[in-house]
Amino acid sequence: MIMTNPILSMNQATIKYADLATALRVCSEAGYRSIGLWREPVEEVGLDTAVKMVKDSGLRVSTMCRGGFFTMEEEPARRASIDDNRKLIEETAALDCHVLVLVVGGLPEGSKDLTGARLRIGEALAELEKDALDAGVTLAIEPLHPMYCTDRACVSTLGQALDIAAPFNPKAVGVTVDTFHIFWDPQVQESIARAGREGRIATYQVCDWKTPLEADPLLSRHYMGEGVIDFRPLTEAVWNTGWRGDIECELFNQKIWDTDPAVVAKKVSDAFDKEVAPYWPL
Amino acid sequence: MIMTNPILSMNQATIKYADLATALRVCSEAGYRSIGLWREPVEEVGLDTAVKMVKDSGLRVSTMCRGGFFTMEEEPARRASIDDNRKLIEETAALDCHVLVLVVGGLPEGSKDLTGARLRIGEALAELEKDALDAGVTLAIEPLHPMYCTDRACVSTLGQALDIAAPFNPKAVGVTVDTFHIFWDPQVQESIARAGREGRIATYQVCDWKTPLEADPLLSRHYMGEGVIDFRPLTEAVWNTGWRGDIECELFNQKIWDTDPAVVAKKVSDAFDKEVAPYWPL
Repeated sequence: MIMTNPILSMNQATIKYADLATALRVCSEAGYRSIGLWREPVEEVGLDTAVKMVKDSGLRVSTMCRGGFFTMEEEPARRASIDDNRKLIEETAALDCHVLVLVVGGLPEGSKDLTGARLRIGEALAELEKDALDAGVTLAIEPLHPMYCTDRACVSTLGQALDIAAPFNPKAVGVTVDTFHIFWDPQVQESIARAGREGRIATYQVCDWKTPLEADPLLSRHYMGEGVIDFRPLTEAVWNTGWRGDIECELFNQKIWDTDPAVVAKKVSDAFDKEVAPYWPL
Repeated sequence: MIMTNPILSMNQATIKYADLATALRVCSEAGYRSIGLWREPVEEVGLDTAVKMVKDSGLRVSTMCRGGFFTMEEEPARRASIDDNRKLIEETAALDCHVLVLVVGGLPEGSKDLTGARLRIGEALAELEKDALDAGVTLAIEPLHPMYCTDRACVSTLGQALDIAAPFNPKAVGVTVDTFHIFWDPQVQESIARAGREGRIATYQVCDWKTPLEADPLLSRHYMGEGVIDFRPLTEAVWNTGWRGDIECELFNQKIWDTDPAVVAKKVSDAFDKEVAPYWPL
């Protein structure tokens, strides 16, 4: 008897080596009703085929990952990035998904200008706002842990993401709330409440933190319960905003990637039931 | 001709393998006027001897490293930690030093309660405030980069350190401003200004950040100029507060530790002259 929580979504990166067909099959068989897709496996089969496969699977697409990477100054690369984000907005909409996660990018090569890089995020969003609105897709700025600030995402706190989102329509620009990236933040409770108040929560993602970090800190994400994050206050804070969406589990972890995806799907579901679901009284 | 900047202080951890005698000699010969000492090499020779050696060297002691580690709940370990911090306050004063750097500690073993750990910092400071005042020593809470939040210091931002320090006399409780730990913070400029306004800056430390991080992220600190930190806005912000003290360079880095300390002393001085001194118009 399959007992996977109906609001749990498997982010495809958690079963990174599964192609789209496998990912959809594994998630369906494990009782998931929702999946967060990555562009590469979608584009591998082609968008039209992917749309049909997803429709046939019956799964909801909770998020599309990922746009962003537009902190650079120079024009040709910048134009290419904006165009690429437009394409991703269309793909997201085509998949009947309403959230495109944005990893905004770090410092451009050779630059030390964090302030400038951060300003260019808002400039890019201003260019993309109308496309997002027209497509019914929310661009979900993801604050990443400050250890990724210079090489991956110079948005490091939820409060900062909300400040960057503030000038834009909340239907067009929201935020990603990922426990791994923000649990340490002494202002996390007030920032989650503010995100809810301002209508900016586009996705809630759960993942655990433990030390020592992996040698590649990007791969240091763990099943809920295997680390030191207390999911109760974070999950309750999101619940208390009134946001109700699918909750994703996204784990970059070599050991998990090397595991049979069906086993991973079960472990994610079990971890969710134990660590998160008790604080989400649907 | 020795040209080391008179306000540059060598933190002893940068030349970790040098014992106290060597560290004092190397710094003196390189023209330093100031050094940040660590307790272990001081206690290795005994406090009285250390006091005499430092006096003979003519060097100022800019900071003593380090107290703290008092986030635990259980009483015997907690008592031992408070007592140890009292001993460190005395050692600091005996060395004619007025700043004891505090690395506050992470989550206690088996705990996921960041809020509780953070509350216990204030409780420890309340016990230590009078000792610090009597000794003329400022306890300098050091916010550490959020990647160390759970295993080393659950104070992760300068603003948070200032909030924790707020109930106490600024002569007793201040903050450590270390570029490596706080440069990523979108609120860093206003937090430095606030630290100045509230009279809390106890020490300013410079050190660079670059990626990829070392496999041991603790050893990922680099000479100024070798990474991506722009020292101008941070140094100018500290200068603009009116704070005038010795500026320390503290590098945990295996390659630097494996280098002849005299060479390190010269490289630190050169890096300081190039990356920091231009923004410190003494």
